[in-house]
Amino acid sequence: MASMSATNSKNMMLFSGRCYPELADEIGKHLGVEPTPTSSYSFANGELFVRFQESVRGCDAFVVQSMAEPINEWVMETLIMIDALKRGSAKRITVVLPFYPYGRQDKKHRGREPISARLIADLLRTAGANRILTVDLHTAQIQGFFDGPVDHLFAMGTLARHIEERYAGKAMTVVAPDSGRVRVAERWTDRLGGCPLAFIHKTRDPLRPNEVVANKVVGEVEGRVCLVVDDMIDTGGTIVSASELLKQNGAADVVVAVTHPILSDPATERLASAPISEVIVTNTLPLPDHAVELEKLTVLSIAPLVAKAISEVFTDGSVTTLFGGLS
Amino acid sequence: MASMSATNSKNMMLFSGRCYPELADEIGKHLGVEPTPTSSYSFANGELFVRFQESVRGCDAFVVQSMAEPINEWVMETLIMIDALKRGSAKRITVVLPFYPYGRQDKKHRGREPISARLIADLLRTAGANRILTVDLHTAQIQGFFDGPVDHLFAMGTLARHIEERYAGKAMTVVAPDSGRVRVAERWTDRLGGCPLAFIHKTRDPLRPNEVVANKVVGEVEGRVCLVVDDMIDTGGTIVSASELLKQNGAADVVVAVTHPILSDPATERLASAPISEVIVTNTLPLPDHAVELEKLTVLSIAPLVAKAISEVFTDGSVTTLFGGLS
Amino acid sequence: MASMSATNSKNMMLFSGRCYPELADEIGKHLGVEPTPTSSYSFANGELFVRFQESVRGCDAFVVQSMAEPINEWVMETLIMIDALKRGSAKRITVVLPFYPYGRQDKKHRGREPISARLIADLLRTAGANRILTVDLHTAQIQGFFDGPVDHLFAMGTLARHIEERYAGKAMTVVAPDSGRVRVAERWTDRLGGCPLAFIHKTRDPLRPNEVVANKVVGEVEGRVCLVVDDMIDTGGTIVSASELLKQNGAADVVVAVTHPILSDPATERLASAPISEVIVTNTLPLPDHAVELEKLTVLSIAPLVAKAISEVFTDGSVTTLFGGLS
Amino acid sequence: MASMSATNSKNMMLFSGRCYPELADEIGKHLGVEPTPTSSYSFANGELFVRFQESVRGCDAFVVQSMAEPINEWVMETLIMIDALKRGSAKRITVVLPFYPYGRQDKKHRGREPISARLIADLLRTAGANRILTVDLHTAQIQGFFDGPVDHLFAMGTLARHIEERYAGKAMTVVAPDSGRVRVAERWTDRLGGCPLAFIHKTRDPLRPNEVVANKVVGEVEGRVCLVVDDMIDTGGTIVSASELLKQNGAADVVVAVTHPILSDPATERLASAPISEVIVTNTLPLPDHAVELEKLTVLSIAPLVAKAISEVFTDGSVTTLFGGLS
Amino acid sequence: MASMSATNSKNMMLFSGRCYPELADEIGKHLGVEPTPTSSYSFANGELFVRFQESVRGCDAFVVQSMAEPINEWVMETLIMIDALKRGSAKRITVVLPFYPYGRQDKKHRGREPISARLIADLLRTAGANRILTVDLHTAQIQGFFDGPVDHLFAMGTLARHIEERYAGKAMTVVAPDSGRVRVAERWTDRLGGCPLAFIHKTRDPLRPNEVVANKVVGEVEGRVCLVVDDMIDTGGTIVSASELLKQNGAADVVVAVTHPILSDPATERLASAPISEVIVTNTLPLPDHAVELEKLTVLSIAPLVAKAISEVFTDGSVTTLFGGLS
Amino acid sequence: MASMSATNSKNMMLFSGRCYPELADEIGKHLGVEPTPTSSYSFANGELFVRFQESVRGCDAFVVQSMAEPINEWVMETLIMIDALKRGSAKRITVVLPFYPYGRQDKKHRGREPISARLIADLLRTAGANRILTVDLHTAQIQGFFDGPVDHLFAMGTLARHIEERYAGKAMTVVAPDSGRVRVAERWTDRLGGCPLAFIHKTRDPLRPNEVVANKVVGEVEGRVCLVVDDMIDTGGTIVSASELLKQNGAADVVVAVTHPILSDPATERLASAPISEVIVTNTLPLPDHAVELEKLTVLSIAPLVAKAISEVFTDGSVTTLFGGLS
Repeated sequence: MASMSATNSKNMMLFSGRCYPELADEIGKHLGVEPTPTSSYSFANGELFVRFQESVRGCDAFVVQSMAEPINEWVMETLIMIDALKRGSAKRITVVLPFYPYGRQDKKHRGREPISARLIADLLRTAGANRILTVDLHTAQIQGFFDGPVDHLFAMGTLARHIEERYAGKAMTVVAPDSGRVRVAERWTDRLGGCPLAFIHKTRDPLRPNEVVANKVVGEVEGRVCLVVDDMIDTGGTIVSASELLKQNGAADVVVAVTHPILSDPATERLASAPISEVIVTNTLPLPDHAVELEKLTVLSIAPLVAKAISEVFTDGSVTTLFGGLS
Repeated sequence: MASMSATNSKNMMLFSGRCYPELADEIGKHLGVEPTPTSSYSFANGELFVRFQESVRGCDAFVVQSMAEPINEWVMETLIMIDALKRGSAKRITVVLPFYPYGRQDKKHRGREPISARLIADLLRTAGANRILTVDLHTAQIQGFFDGPVDHLFAMGTLARHIEERYAGKAMTVVAPDSGRVRVAERWTDRLGGCPLAFIHKTRDPLRPNEVVANKVVGEVEGRVCLVVDDMIDTGGTIVSASELLKQNGAADVVVAVTHPILSDPATERLASAPISEVIVTNTLPLPDHAVELEKLTVLSIAPLVAKAISEVFTDGSVTTLFGGLS
Repeated sequence: MASMSATNSKNMMLFSGRCYPELADEIGKHLGVEPTPTSSYSFANGELFVRFQESVRGCDAFVVQSMAEPINEWVMETLIMIDALKRGSAKRITVVLPFYPYGRQDKKHRGREPISARLIADLLRTAGANRILTVDLHTAQIQGFFDGPVDHLFAMGTLARHIEERYAGKAMTVVAPDSGRVRVAERWTDRLGGCPLAFIHKTRDPLRPNEVVANKVVGEVEGRVCLVVDDMIDTGGTIVSASELLKQNGAADVVVAVTHPILSDPATERLASAPISEVIVTNTLPLPDHAVELEKLTVLSIAPLVAKAISEVFTDGSVTTLFGGLS
Repeated sequence: MASMSATNSKNMMLFSGRCYPELADEIGKHLGVEPTPTSSYSFANGELFVRFQESVRGCDAFVVQSMAEPINEWVMETLIMIDALKRGSAKRITVVLPFYPYGRQDKKHRGREPISARLIADLLRTAGANRILTVDLHTAQIQGFFDGPVDHLFAMGTLARHIEERYAGKAMTVVAPDSGRVRVAERWTDRLGGCPLAFIHKTRDPLRPNEVVANKVVGEVEGRVCLVVDDMIDTGGTIVSASELLKQNGAADVVVAVTHPILSDPATERLASAPISEVIVTNTLPLPDHAVELEKLTVLSIAPLVAKAISEVFTDGSVTTLFGGLS
Repeated sequence: MASMSATNSKNMMLFSGRCYPELADEIGKHLGVEPTPTSSYSFANGELFVRFQESVRGCDAFVVQSMAEPINEWVMETLIMIDALKRGSAKRITVVLPFYPYGRQDKKHRGREPISARLIADLLRTAGANRILTVDLHTAQIQGFFDGPVDHLFAMGTLARHIEERYAGKAMTVVAPDSGRVRVAERWTDRLGGCPLAFIHKTRDPLRPNEVVANKVVGEVEGRVCLVVDDMIDTGGTIVSASELLKQNGAADVVVAVTHPILSDPATERLASAPISEVIVTNTLPLPDHAVELEKLTVLSIAPLVAKAISEVFTDGSVTTLFGGLS
Repeated sequence: MASMSATNSKNMMLFSGRCYPELADEIGKHLGVEPTPTSSYSFANGELFVRFQESVRGCDAFVVQSMAEPINEWVMETLIMIDALKRGSAKRITVVLPFYPYGRQDKKHRGREPISARLIADLLRTAGANRILTVDLHTAQIQGFFDGPVDHLFAMGTLARHIEERYAGKAMTVVAPDSGRVRVAERWTDRLGGCPLAFIHKTRDPLRPNEVVANKVVGEVEGRVCLVVDDMIDTGGTIVSASELLKQNGAADVVVAVTHPILSDPATERLASAPISEVIVTNTLPLPDHAVELEKLTVLSIAPLVAKAISEVFTDGSVTTLFGGLS
């Protein structure tokens, strides 16, 4: 016989990095697929090692990794997992990054700086990633940093449903905590049916991009519930000083909705004492220990959305419908 | 003798595409280098042909091309010029694009869209470009689309000097014509010494990204000279409706400052009849014929800035100093 | 469960650029597949935009684009369509170019020239094309410019069947209009059963490759029907002067058979008044308006051949059998 | 209809280079697939030509090539076969190299040397190989030279079964013929149940890596059957001088087990007269004519192992189980 | 001190493969540079080894290799030399191939064939070659196979000067030995001042591209000196049967001018007994032993032309001037 | 003027990562070049940031980074520094890694493992590194993992000079602590004038590659000073159990010489109490705090060797001479 035929089925396998296995487990439950058992450990000098305990040959691999501290460990672990999948003959490798690392370094703010968000995209590609699936990139342009398909999900639907339930009937203003987020905040006003939009006009020291100085509120906030929206809370400085300024300008209440709860120190402490009534986040990142007991914190799960997207990618369905009109 | 040595000098050559040779000539005058004589023409079916009339072997090539209509002709001409330089053994090829084409398609607004700004970067790279030199990208993230150095110049210094002279002493507000430009407008307030900042809160139909609907002004504009800043004026719809809205909200005067004067029809007509007293632009693009007689138009030359940057690139000097504190 | 399986089917989708949608429609009819609805338009400054109105995830995509004037628009549109398919997760992308653009610039005729035919191949590859399907390349070597499979179809079978019917019994000589096409003309003599072969010995000005000067006929043409064969008619100069020379040398009749009817001005006018009794072409390109009424023009459809090839590519059949002994 | 679906089957095809078609035939018999009929010949000036006589479109191709003398012919033939498969639209190309060529040049022994084993990996990749399947690489690090999956099989199981049968009950010592093979020899001691390990401490002239000077035995060999293990026998110098030294040191018997029987002149002659009772090899390479009659030579077939691995690769099974605990 | 400066000189080094060191020596004499001493040898199993005996760090390397039999050895040796230069930190690597190997396989003549001429270009690039310098490619399109600069020299000037001296005043016709070479033969008629042009109309069996069947002469040859021009003589079949046919058609004399004297058996014997008065070749390839005593053979040296081109490449001069108006 | 010339000088700049700036300083002192002032810090969530405080345009950059714990931080910092240099227009980027990270994962020990040493090479290349300069790779084959020049230095000369001075006249045996290091140990016997060679025959659990079980000494050690040589000490388990076994076998003294002092816990404690009289290392890595007071530890500086190599690379001298006959 000159050739041999066989039917061609496809096989999804889920892999979890060590940053936040609980999220991968939860995604897996929604999909009905358990993460593949994997030996992952660090050698004495910190070098990482990964080996999958089942054959990955020919599989459609989804590697789930959150990117909390120590973030560079998890970046390297992800790259090493991809390399092992590539060399183990996985057919296609999709990296699922609920929080895309180094997204804030998406351009050269000044000369002689890196563009680390592009570097991350290139490193993933070099290791062997075919596709990326991620949630709420710091800027949507980061999609263009990767030479391949990027499925970009939005948490706004998840967050907005909660707000619409809890704050129905309130006079609300959406507030961008800085000038770079006004465009995203505008999408929230559309979603919430056309409420007013305000932002904080501030000065930033280009030499220390993590430090900001709030000046004044632009827009109508007096007597209104202010919904401050952002993609992430890191140390909380921006959000907290925004809330104080809003209160000084007569806001009735301040509510915060962000996708990524980085919550680096001293974020929990700052949020606890700030004039904010509720902080709504998703679980794209694991909560730091100190944040678990923060009473005003509401955590909504991103797992159903991510699981649905993975399922559509596997079955070649449309992910666009998951974007909820958000684009 | 087992080897032969020679001193190694470097040699700058300037090349001009056919879109806007006057700008290349002006840049050349500042540098003291004439554009290399080049045979460029179109075959009967529109295919382009380029041949340089002097040897380019070993040169440090700077290819200057503006990107006005018919823009796809000039994109192709640029790629073909780069190919001819590469195959003709140019040592290094820097593409000088005063206006980067397709910058507005810098992300997928919805599913199944291209990211044409990344595509352009990849096409330039594939043809053989080593570096890009450009002015006021639509978003700074586009720098990260190119796998190599990008020198990103800012026209704000050029434009702001003019404004500071003519409008000294006026009570001014900087206005972003839409929510996506507030961050850039904020930089203008820093440059102009801390004046107020406003923006137009509008709704955009995601299916027709060139059409917008202005709603209302957010920020303090009454009785003030409003400086509307943007990176480009295309058909002028956004800018003109912003100016009308500002006047309705009591603005004393409206002045517009943008870098790239695309001025597609019916921009000139619209601007002529709009309540705008001055439109300040640079010559990164050639003015369309109908725009030349627009009296309220002030055109400032970008050539000195570009020439200075080329000179620094050639001599390995620092371009960062040209950024004028703008980042 | 540690993994999830699904059967793996494949799904052909057809996409049409805007150059010549009628041809894509006709190909689609032969296949029983309609071109996917697509939003394609140009922004005011000429930048192109494309968005597919159905999910393309996982599809086996065939992008059909002719390459008539304005040819650079269609090159860019094709690249942008490919980018959108790649980013939209198409599984495989085949670009169907009935007429390959820039095929005549397939080498450096002199120093400091581009090799634009190679550049086009690289641009298609960079955008994301996996394969090319094309008809009668200017030179067969262009296949080697693309780093991937090229299915190269021949129109000779289609053209020759017509000639065999209409000119059965005539004493025929195949004539190459210039020295570079003698090899192809020789294939025609084989196909037509061994008739004589002649060519026009001419001088070409290397500085103006579109202009040629015919000198004299080499070979036996007196009293014979001369079949002038070529891959394309652009302005018609070469073909028309060949026909005049053949008549002067005693040809009984002149018939022209070419694959690609570019027919740039003044081709129609020239052909109308030339001593040519029939011009046989295919519809790899749309006819210009002025050519539609040229009575001596016979247009044969290439769609059945292209559709058959697409079908074989999709089902992994052999395309070689379509070459009809032509190689 | 907007799209057309078909089930997606996969189709294995086997291709054989001309170095050792008997091995490909034998592998094919185990798989139940005959090598695809192929026209392969050399032009008068030595240039090679390959054409497959059946369509390869969409197939899962396995190209089997041994690498005996003239080795560079077969390297080139393999590259040309891969190119023809790539351009003929094979879906996936696995190169099966029972003996990986240039494996000994896996590092720069001194400055200004090539790393030819990496070069070979890159050449295969460039031609279009997606995967490599090979047996007993000279060093396992060569896997890392290829940018893709490498299935690395071990002949130790095949060789050891023979030894365990024939030499059961003998007091045995495993001997590494030089210091670089001690690690591999140690694996043999594990496989054979923990017998002693010895090696030959020698001096190598770095300028002539094919010549070695044996000094002295390190380890316990007196009165024992010495099993000298290595990956290949080339001219036999190392193995033969080791056997003589072992005898001088009181070995009861010397048996040799190697995977790759290169057996360049004067290996056969040397082995015939050496104090070695049996030389056990596999058929990863064809035996030279002079070696066929060497009575002490035992040839074990590698075909069953290779066929099993190909089958697992085709069906996406696990190849790791074929490694027999060897890693 | 924050940095350290040094002047930057450049240093040419010449390297010779083992195919035809006499040519490299002759080129070196024209340049005043001796080929770098190099250890090159073959291991017992045919694997090649190369090591340079002087540091190549930072040099501008020119690797000269002819490509006679055993041609695949020399292809591999060239690739290995390039790898060693790349890893040894040569600054730029130019491969000088007086005869480009596999040039005849420049397209797929039928399905499932390789395009070996493109493969060779890619292999050279992968190994590390930056540029190619070659003489009389089989088709000029091969330039486009390499992703980098190709300096393509023409031997016509060298050959034509000899012919103009020896055959001044003769009535000459230039003859293309097959239909594919008519374009090149036409260039010869231009060079020789406009003499007639003829060709041999023949049938070729596509399955055996080395065998051809001559039919008949097209063009004016009676009573004239026929100059048969081609790029190479391999077995001489084409040329010799052309000469016989020309004589039968009344040619006064037959002279042959070709660039590359492959002269595979039985070319010498055939040429000796053919009705050809002189065979003029260059030394791009070494003469086989049997050809040395062929009295009608005139060998002209290509070394001055190649040396001049290398010198221009090294000093960034124009090579176009060496093309002698040939394009 | 059609072009502008300038002399072309080159400019070395030194950059230091934060792992071990003292080593970069020391290297800089030998070169007479201070490391370039650099802003390097970590954001609150662990993301790293780097910006150079002087222009790097056109420089020949040498980035020095040791790779101690937290090793993944320093890998990422190195990649980010390279990206910033590439985008800042450095002309050439050499990464100086005195200790190459992940060198032990240089092959797949079993299926579904990564080859992290190759991954590291590819990541460096992707970020923009042109060359690597490193000391005592775990296996020399790692050179072949990088697609570019690798300058591989050896510390044996530095270590051996110390041993020759201190242990002159002693009866010495070189001992490889495991079977994989015998080849390297053999080089030491050559360097030390031909003393005996021994090794530890052990069993390794392939699932836990960091844990080993020593069995027995093979070779002559009784009454001799045993010099245990290796490339690194990590937790010290291998070395310490080797020393105990050697003592049990009658060794007079045990001295250890290794290049890379990783010294992860509990290495210091183990070494302190082991029967080892001296542990000689270099400073390719910073000493952990607990190791500083280990009295038996002798640290020799690698800085002079690295500085000499950098200097040769910068001036295009030969580095081979630094290899001290070691290959």
